Amino acid sequence: MPVGTLATVKGITATQLADTGAQMVLANTYHLHLQPGEGIVADAGGLHRFMGWDRPLLTDSGGFQIFSLADLNRIDDHGVVFRNPRNGSQIELTPERAIEIQMALGADVAMAFDQCPPYPASESDVEAACKRTHAWLERCSNTHQHTSQALFGIVQGGCFPHLREQSAHIVASFDLPGIAIGGVSVGEPVEDIHRIVRQVSPLLPQDRPRYLMGIGTLREIAIAVASGIDLFDCVLPTRLGRHGTALVAGERWNLRNARFREDHTPLDQSCACTACRHHSRAYLHHLIRNEELLGLTLLSLHNLTQLIRFTSAISQAIQDDCFSEDFAPWQPDSAAHHTW
Amino acid sequence: MPVGTLATVKGITATQLADTGAQMVLANTYHLHLQPGEGIVADAGGLHRFMGWDRPLLTDSGGFQIFSLADLNRIDDHGVVFRNPRNGSQIELTPERAIEIQMALGADVAMAFDQCPPYPASESDVEAACKRTHAWLERCSNTHQHTSQALFGIVQGGCFPHLREQSAHIVASFDLPGIAIGGVSVGEPVEDIHRIVRQVSPLLPQDRPRYLMGIGTLREIAIAVASGIDLFDCVLPTRLGRHGTALVAGERWNLRNARFREDHTPLDQSCACTACRHHSRAYLHHLIRNEELLGLTLLSLHNLTQLIRFTSAISQAIQDDCFSEDFAPWQPDSAAHHTW
Repeated sequence: MPVGTLATVKGITATQLADTGAQMVLANTYHLHLQPGEGIVADAGGLHRFMGWDRPLLTDSGGFQIFSLADLNRIDDHGVVFRNPRNGSQIELTPERAIEIQMALGADVAMAFDQCPPYPASESDVEAACKRTHAWLERCSNTHQHTSQALFGIVQGGCFPHLREQSAHIVASFDLPGIAIGGVSVGEPVEDIHRIVRQVSPLLPQDRPRYLMGIGTLREIAIAVASGIDLFDCVLPTRLGRHGTALVAGERWNLRNARFREDHTPLDQSCACTACRHHSRAYLHHLIRNEELLGLTLLSLHNLTQLIRFTSAISQAIQDDCFSEDFAPWQPDSAAHHTW
Repeated sequence: MPVGTLATVKGITATQLADTGAQMVLANTYHLHLQPGEGIVADAGGLHRFMGWDRPLLTDSGGFQIFSLADLNRIDDHGVVFRNPRNGSQIELTPERAIEIQMALGADVAMAFDQCPPYPASESDVEAACKRTHAWLERCSNTHQHTSQALFGIVQGGCFPHLREQSAHIVASFDLPGIAIGGVSVGEPVEDIHRIVRQVSPLLPQDRPRYLMGIGTLREIAIAVASGIDLFDCVLPTRLGRHGTALVAGERWNLRNARFREDHTPLDQSCACTACRHHSRAYLHHLIRNEELLGLTLLSLHNLTQLIRFTSAISQAIQDDCFSEDFAPWQPDSAAHHTW
């Protein structure tokens, strides 16, 4: 899932986004609650209509942003109070409120409101966050009306295997249409992500989608798919694009680099994106060097296309029963080196 | 002609640009000479290939930018020396050099190197600039190789009718495939533009395109067409778009305005652009308020589409022999009020 924080994947029209092959987009409840507010999105006929995107959408619960970005004023079992960065007013978010907001936004998938502990955190802190996450899941589940929107629960537990196991069992017991693994990519070593996914994924229902939150590098995707993960989201392709970096041949290329100045070949001969079909590395270098908006759009499109091409190849390999063979070089025990 | 200063119409892909109905694009020789340099554009196979635009292109001569933007060091009959704003080095531009650069860029139309006097300027200063412009036109014409590229001359003469008349006759005598009226929209009252166009246009060859440089408001276009002008260029539609302003119903709307916050109707029901077909005023307001790149792209696309729809309607009316009737409200003696 490309990330469309404020109901837009930055610099890309809905038509261009569909052309990348993207099937589902994530939008951020925290940001949309602040601006323009869920009421306006609901009046517009929901997030699909508001942003002109007719394929699936998922909204996160806002929890991750509140715990990582916001000026927190109070956090207890009832919920969270934080300061609105735009006008200083106090905002209270509870599990009930997080679900009401997401129901108003009207994405296809809403996420339960969870407490994501920072890294590193003590075992007792992570245990307390798990306990609260499970209590909040119950309240989210009670609040959520089963319209056309699905509610996914979130497994927490930090880097503690017994807490992850317990959380997986409790969240799975809610019989929800999908489950996410949260609290990863918060600063822990990448090996811990692999270990958590390998441990938790098999504990989740086999017949429901499993979503690894905030992960989007090729290597981590390939490794997680081997454990049964279906869904990912990551700001990386678009954020790198806006910073002039292209994902090419398993590497990150800084298009500002003078070596592209007179390179009239396409970024990636095998890529079908607008940047690769119509333009050269020299042109992209020229745009990025001169801070032209089009450069950011073209590189974002390219990076998204690359990532989605990779996940599509994985899907195809699974259907063709050759995933473990074809994607062996991406697995942890492989000697092959990938830098994305 | 939308303006693609640095071989890109800001924030818009070539495909999106073609969708606006744009037939021809202007690029700036001054800017392209500085960055990336005409050598790189030529190596890429010319400006069309470099920017991925397969419809007609025109490059200006660089003169206007040098006289209005550059740190001028010397100007005499030979040419102009100015400081490169990027590295402080001295650059000399002569009529010969301006043509060589444009031949390397390889647009369909190149413009003669002229001296555009500031406004206001004394009669003797304008007369001297005219004399130099005509001498430079001779040198441009001698330098220009008639490949697939056309060379257009430029009529100067400021607000002095006898100088305009003289300049029109001299430039017309070169038997070039097209002629431009330059030195307008440099600060003079808009009535002077109308007067100059009405005077000069009939003096130019009836069977060649006539181009009014730097003009792009609907009213001025309609008035100039009535005098026989065929070509226009203006940064206004894209510049206004990047500043959050939309051209709607003959007015300029600032999308930042709170009145659009909950307005879920399209910007312009009758417009076929991406912004109007897929989005609401509330969404565009949200994007502009939050400085989202997509807002700038969508408003630029809308404004270009509006302008090109207007010029297409003029073309159609001329073919249908109803221009003077249908576009009467836009003429100077009409009581109708248009604010674009």
